[in-house]
Amino acid sequence: MASSNSKIRVVQYGLGHIGQEVVHLLIKKPRFALVGVIDNDPLKAGRSVSELLGMPHAPKVRVSGDGPACLARVRPDAVIHTTGSSVKGTFSQLVDILESGAHCISSTEELLYPDLRNPALARKLDRLARQEQVALLGTGVNPGFAMDILPLCLTGICQSVSSIHVTRVLDASHRRLPLQRKIGAGLNVREFKNLVRAEKLGHVGLLESMMLLAEGLGWKLDRCAEKIEPKIAPRRLATSHLVISKGSVAGLRQVATGFRRGKPVLVLDLLMFVGAKASYDFIQIKGRPSLESKVIKGIHGDVATVAALVNAVPRVIESGKTGLISMLDLPVPRMAP
Amino acid sequence: MASSNSKIRVVQYGLGHIGQEVVHLLIKKPRFALVGVIDNDPLKAGRSVSELLGMPHAPKVRVSGDGPACLARVRPDAVIHTTGSSVKGTFSQLVDILESGAHCISSTEELLYPDLRNPALARKLDRLARQEQVALLGTGVNPGFAMDILPLCLTGICQSVSSIHVTRVLDASHRRLPLQRKIGAGLNVREFKNLVRAEKLGHVGLLESMMLLAEGLGWKLDRCAEKIEPKIAPRRLATSHLVISKGSVAGLRQVATGFRRGKPVLVLDLLMFVGAKASYDFIQIKGRPSLESKVIKGIHGDVATVAALVNAVPRVIESGKTGLISMLDLPVPRMAP
Repeated sequence: MASSNSKIRVVQYGLGHIGQEVVHLLIKKPRFALVGVIDNDPLKAGRSVSELLGMPHAPKVRVSGDGPACLARVRPDAVIHTTGSSVKGTFSQLVDILESGAHCISSTEELLYPDLRNPALARKLDRLARQEQVALLGTGVNPGFAMDILPLCLTGICQSVSSIHVTRVLDASHRRLPLQRKIGAGLNVREFKNLVRAEKLGHVGLLESMMLLAEGLGWKLDRCAEKIEPKIAPRRLATSHLVISKGSVAGLRQVATGFRRGKPVLVLDLLMFVGAKASYDFIQIKGRPSLESKVIKGIHGDVATVAALVNAVPRVIESGKTGLISMLDLPVPRMAP
Repeated sequence: MASSNSKIRVVQYGLGHIGQEVVHLLIKKPRFALVGVIDNDPLKAGRSVSELLGMPHAPKVRVSGDGPACLARVRPDAVIHTTGSSVKGTFSQLVDILESGAHCISSTEELLYPDLRNPALARKLDRLARQEQVALLGTGVNPGFAMDILPLCLTGICQSVSSIHVTRVLDASHRRLPLQRKIGAGLNVREFKNLVRAEKLGHVGLLESMMLLAEGLGWKLDRCAEKIEPKIAPRRLATSHLVISKGSVAGLRQVATGFRRGKPVLVLDLLMFVGAKASYDFIQIKGRPSLESKVIKGIHGDVATVAALVNAVPRVIESGKTGLISMLDLPVPRMAP
């Protein structure tokens, strides 16, 4: 394990957009040494990171298409894992990472609170991580910060809380195409509804945020509800990726509500659409004291998720915790040097 | 030590305004049992808490004037200590608490970062706490949250930070007389300046907040500067406690600046005065991403400090940490049940 002075040796697992940005950030930060990169894409495997990312000064690392072999060879302190949203879909990769004896910090959204959808797999991962004496953490900006940890942090100065309402509005006009697709931009309403029904559209992690927030407050929720509705384009909208005709889908509104003793006590209201007038993150806590807090121009999801992943690495290692851990177990978030 | 299900047995040390409010809150919360109250004031010692605070349903606890005797008798899990701002002034009380084998959560402002003004006493307290296998924490809302932990938490989603500017504006019009006195309200400018020079006026803890924030970011500051200036009443102002004539002091502006590589990278700007148009807490982070966050009507200092103290107790105990710890060592703040 890295001492507090030596560099933390990190492997990046997954070289999609987020993974590439993680590589850029790791290389910039003195606290970390990038010692390996894994990606299954045959177009990437075998190529040098510096060439692939256009970074002449990057460390001499080639992308490996074979996770277990790469991990066994470089034996990193930690792996940052950014390949998918579901625990089921990423399970075998997570097992490979833990079995190599490395801590794992993953952007897998369901891993923020894996007991919700995958309790059996969560138990397996927890057992394996404890056995290997490493920690496995799911984090990011949403889920992982904007709609769960930040509101929770604000309750730290509340004597009592009766309800929390978080509104995250994200203008998707200038975001990546995958984000615009994820929110259904450009579809007609029927296509949108079909994809929602097939669970192929929408933000993954809203209920996970709610469960984490409830656990942090020591609240047992009676029940949760989630709904996804289209935001309709009031006029023709164009982004650099697509054109949205008037009346078709500009994005979505996804709302999760948590009930306690029959009352809606947690409301997470996520609006992501092309043409939103402003992006912002608004937290309204009713209690003693009541608090209203706003991140005025919002939090850019991709930039912040990359930061959240990298910044979590030293906190995970220094915590000395093992097993499947959550953001509730770690010290206050902070930028890593 | 309390198991995670049994109540945490707490003694309240100090029965001033904050201490009284802590007692009220402890009694309300299911997680805690109030098992003792200590105050040296002969007008309070010996009297029952329920009579003194007008709480017919309070547990049958008498105020003890003898700290060590009370602590030896009830052997609490934790003590909440709210008697003063300076480490020197509260040192012997802190020693008594630690020697009794109880964790101590204190509102002593200098204890947020005691290395700044009292490194030798801090070492002694750390040694004693380790020896007794308990933790000693300084916390509150300011210092302890609004101008240090909350901005630090926001940097958790930043890839890089070049500067942080925190502005806390507090309209003192409807606050307690001790707060109005602390900020010099009603004095003339000469009296104000004399008291500032004698270090008898101003907010204690601004430099402590800055040091904690810098440590959290892994920043070594070249130097710090602090200045306290009067805010002059532009017209006659009246509160329910005092009258401020036009041209005399309505409150203060206290600014701490931290420099790194010659540049001002941390600015903590605290304005507390009668007649402020609005209270708010504004955090401006320049970096990637830059963030602007505002607690719109501000954070009420007394209500929030009481909450911060009580909420810290379970986190301190569950952390398993011993010695002199700081808010950087503890999990994300959250309301305790």
